[in-house]
Amino acid sequence: MAPETATAPNPTPVVQDLKLTLKDPLVLQSGVTLSPVTLAYQTYGTLNADRSNCVLVCHALTGDQYVVGTHPLTGKQGWWDDLVGPGKVIDTDRFFVVCANVLGGCMGSTGPKEINPATGRPWGLKFPVITIRDMVQAQAKLLDYLGIQKLFCVMGGSMGGMQVLEWAVRYPERVFAAVPIAGSYRHSAQNIAFHEVGRQAIMADPDWSHGNYLEEQKIPKRGLAVARMAAHITYLSEAALHRKFGRRLQDRETLTYGFDADFQVESYLRHQGYTFVDRFDANSYLYITRAMDYFDLAQENDGVLANAFKGTRVRYCLMSFSSDWLFPTEESRAIVRALNAVAANVSFVEVESDKGHDAFLLDEPEFHQTLQGFIDGSAEICGLGARKS
Amino acid sequence: MAPETATAPNPTPVVQDLKLTLKDPLVLQSGVTLSPVTLAYQTYGTLNADRSNCVLVCHALTGDQYVVGTHPLTGKQGWWDDLVGPGKVIDTDRFFVVCANVLGGCMGSTGPKEINPATGRPWGLKFPVITIRDMVQAQAKLLDYLGIQKLFCVMGGSMGGMQVLEWAVRYPERVFAAVPIAGSYRHSAQNIAFHEVGRQAIMADPDWSHGNYLEEQKIPKRGLAVARMAAHITYLSEAALHRKFGRRLQDRETLTYGFDADFQVESYLRHQGYTFVDRFDANSYLYITRAMDYFDLAQENDGVLANAFKGTRVRYCLMSFSSDWLFPTEESRAIVRALNAVAANVSFVEVESDKGHDAFLLDEPEFHQTLQGFIDGSAEICGLGARKS
Repeated sequence: MAPETATAPNPTPVVQDLKLTLKDPLVLQSGVTLSPVTLAYQTYGTLNADRSNCVLVCHALTGDQYVVGTHPLTGKQGWWDDLVGPGKVIDTDRFFVVCANVLGGCMGSTGPKEINPATGRPWGLKFPVITIRDMVQAQAKLLDYLGIQKLFCVMGGSMGGMQVLEWAVRYPERVFAAVPIAGSYRHSAQNIAFHEVGRQAIMADPDWSHGNYLEEQKIPKRGLAVARMAAHITYLSEAALHRKFGRRLQDRETLTYGFDADFQVESYLRHQGYTFVDRFDANSYLYITRAMDYFDLAQENDGVLANAFKGTRVRYCLMSFSSDWLFPTEESRAIVRALNAVAANVSFVEVESDKGHDAFLLDEPEFHQTLQGFIDGSAEICGLGARKS
Repeated sequence: MAPETATAPNPTPVVQDLKLTLKDPLVLQSGVTLSPVTLAYQTYGTLNADRSNCVLVCHALTGDQYVVGTHPLTGKQGWWDDLVGPGKVIDTDRFFVVCANVLGGCMGSTGPKEINPATGRPWGLKFPVITIRDMVQAQAKLLDYLGIQKLFCVMGGSMGGMQVLEWAVRYPERVFAAVPIAGSYRHSAQNIAFHEVGRQAIMADPDWSHGNYLEEQKIPKRGLAVARMAAHITYLSEAALHRKFGRRLQDRETLTYGFDADFQVESYLRHQGYTFVDRFDANSYLYITRAMDYFDLAQENDGVLANAFKGTRVRYCLMSFSSDWLFPTEESRAIVRALNAVAANVSFVEVESDKGHDAFLLDEPEFHQTLQGFIDGSAEICGLGARKS
């Protein structure tokens, strides 16, 4: 354990922007060769001497590598600040946590907003379509660079959960434990449909300029905001929206008989939409949603999901949330059934929560306790010792 | 019974466009006075001598008065062709069916696309915000004109169900039976949120021109299409989308690694969006969604829904669909509980269906049988005689 964290029990980790440019080109699942490939990443905690305490965190669609601490763009807390840090469930006094911005992202990793070296201009729609497998392949090369042969744990929620599954299936020898949270083995028709609405909203904005907005110094703010608003509804549950807002009015006593945000829920949604555009790139949104749509671990195994897991020695812990209708429990159960079919080591908990899909980002006690138990147990078995109480 | 339908057992009713311009201005719920008010409507079947066989059908958000027969714009069948017609559940050999395009609509009734006589130009956003109550008030005046003092039945699904409730609460002496299907007594936070996304999509389209597109000879096609796509997802169930489309590809063998509609569900959604703009007015969409958002029968009764129904003698039949997540069964149950609290005559069936909200438009046997039983029983009690088998 690093002495500086021992003396300062709960410090905000210093955010130091890290970047790795891969020395070789990346051959993508589409067959296209992409070069150069840069991954922007963050690490938290200290790698132990035998490099066995690494937890790879995979972020969701609009997440990024700033898991903990103050986000450099928004000034807000990291997206898993509740879960990761000294003394927390993912204890950075014990574990070396790595998180990289996904390939195709917009927080420093190679993506459509970065410069295409062949033209000296932003990639835009000339950027190749990438997949979850491509994201994971790039992460594996980052771990090679960091000298980490085997992950103690790979974990993530939503699209992060897809990456976790891809990791465990593609590199089973490099993963001790895998924790896909609120995830799925393939994107459902309804989820593809919601993504398509978001993409169409972006593309409908004339400021999108067929993807060339950066060159033309425009930003398709309105389209991206609409995409975010539609998506944001799917992250919550009806119960959560009812509890948070119901039909309460926003800063007024009576209806205005107009199209202002009379209702709090309207005001909230507009805020979600219009703050999102300050931190996210519209083309990245297209590419990352597409990567999720394309994900299908069953299809690539002749339609039999269990085949993806044959002979696996990875220890799985799956979690879902009872009110999540975007990645409902049934999706996780299908994975559990496939793992059971190959006699894999798997535990599964459906956490009771009325907070919808977003619950994986929130301080949900049952979720955290379940994860704590799995991580501590796995760490002991893995030879990382017992948790200090 | 009209002799021509007796000899031609299942003819397509002749569609003859009917319009009524009210002689008096309409005082809206907002306090604004609207004049002139025209209602475009259709009738099917024949009014009997004592004018006691009228069924008023109330249409949903994007429905219209063309319940039966060939739609003059789309060339498609009327939206309740399965249910209404000679020998059908709503038997036009027995009943005189009336349906009017709602106030604020775009199929001939006074709405934002019609000419504001004060300016000689389309109303656009100068059109006053209307409510469900205003729609129903206008329908009541149409029935006055038709000489119909009391409806045998008022029925409708979704927003039509809201109008049914408003009818039964506002004019209980004019309603014998009320059938709200897949409806609600107030629009939920989640539904307001989805509507807000649609409105923001329309308003984000530069061709919307702050509502003045008709004057500027533009149409906000892209914004309206996105609004429709988002809404359309909510009309279906995940199961229905999975069954209809799953992850099947559209006219291709493999993924294209691009942003074309690779998946059938994308192609379907785009089609839904882009055909909608040919038949619907964007400003009407804003006004009608707003009317739904504003609807809240509990709030206007001191938060106690049962108070809305005190002393009612209307016979109610409520129906919901098990997979409807836009107007879920719980919404109907809340109405049933309120009706029970005032000892009203109410029956309720949750129809097992995996087709989502749209099930009310489809040929669902249990739905049709339940409705048939209620209509036939009510007709006998009402003195309209027994159904001919």
